[in-house]
Amino acid sequence: MKQYYILIGKEEFIIADSTISRTSILDAAEEVLRRFGMAKSNLSDVARALGVSHAAIYRHFDNKAALREAMAERWLNHVMEPLNAIVANNDEPEIRLRSWLDTLRAFKRSRALTDPELFAMYMALTAEAADLLHRHVEDMLEQLTVIIADGIAAGVFAPCDARESARAFYLATTRFHHPSHAGEWELSDSDINYEITWKLLMNGLTIRS
Amino acid sequence: MKQYYILIGKEEFIIADSTISRTSILDAAEEVLRRFGMAKSNLSDVARALGVSHAAIYRHFDNKAALREAMAERWLNHVMEPLNAIVANNDEPEIRLRSWLDTLRAFKRSRALTDPELFAMYMALTAEAADLLHRHVEDMLEQLTVIIADGIAAGVFAPCDARESARAFYLATTRFHHPSHAGEWELSDSDINYEITWKLLMNGLTIRS
Repeated sequence: MKQYYILIGKEEFIIADSTISRTSILDAAEEVLRRFGMAKSNLSDVARALGVSHAAIYRHFDNKAALREAMAERWLNHVMEPLNAIVANNDEPEIRLRSWLDTLRAFKRSRALTDPELFAMYMALTAEAADLLHRHVEDMLEQLTVIIADGIAAGVFAPCDARESARAFYLATTRFHHPSHAGEWELSDSDINYEITWKLLMNGLTIRS
Repeated sequence: MKQYYILIGKEEFIIADSTISRTSILDAAEEVLRRFGMAKSNLSDVARALGVSHAAIYRHFDNKAALREAMAERWLNHVMEPLNAIVANNDEPEIRLRSWLDTLRAFKRSRALTDPELFAMYMALTAEAADLLHRHVEDMLEQLTVIIADGIAAGVFAPCDARESARAFYLATTRFHHPSHAGEWELSDSDINYEITWKLLMNGLTIRS
């Protein structure tokens, strides 16, 4: 990364590299937050880590709160792309529903297992961003609604309010995707718990003879 | 409460009142823990609060860990009596299942709402007592198993492994009884979320035409 300096009096000032990207700021902010913790890190630390001026950061984010919300948003959005791909594919609705839940579960487990410290940090960040988290859940409910409506149209799922069932399905699988339960995800009974819950919910959704 | 003192040299020693009860120790320990916090309170503080000697406490509890486990156990057991009464009554299985869940939910909400500080304290205490918590959940699963088995026998619930369905039902209602979700229990959508989840689970359990 190129950097320009000017010397005024005895002080050296950095002229921010105008090519500094949003992504590199978010990456740097993640490292800063990890090193100094939520309470102690601010925009100056991020600017220092990147070797740029405050102005370079402000060009992308109005304040610390905006930067933190953008971090939380990026963290939450990572899972949306694979989930959207599942919603849009041509598999049977029941297969897509299972695949959606498997993918969400595997994604969260992998994150919690690979880097528990980072997982806890983003858990705190997203908890602070209530509106963002609400929109994120609504987006996931929309995905589930599409799959369930497809299932009703295909005559596989029993007629119901698809949006309502999507919400109930999401709430009833809380144990397997809500970060509060991360401590249970690697326990020996986690897989069997997942299977029996899935079975009960499928009994509730599908048409039985 | 009677107390006896002896004077040895210049020190006054309390002779513990031998009638001191387990219940009054647990009550005092609750107050001590609330005042000093988990990290800073010990058996001496409890003895001091009651005006008795260490020996009086040791007569009931071997050590601090045993006292804390007994506190957690008492806290968890309070809900078991009303739940047991529901399991044993003569209502239809579906009514009993709903009543069981309503009671558990109302009990936890009331505790979290009335005294959030005490609720958080016991949440930490029970989290420490993993074996106890495990037995508590197994006891609740046993209650649910009885109700569901009754429902199968009555031809109301579809034939299934009652123990497995009990576990799935318990897991799928996590959002409404697990203390991690206490922050959502008084939100405006809590009741509707509860109803739609109940509906999906009943669709899964009951025989449909």
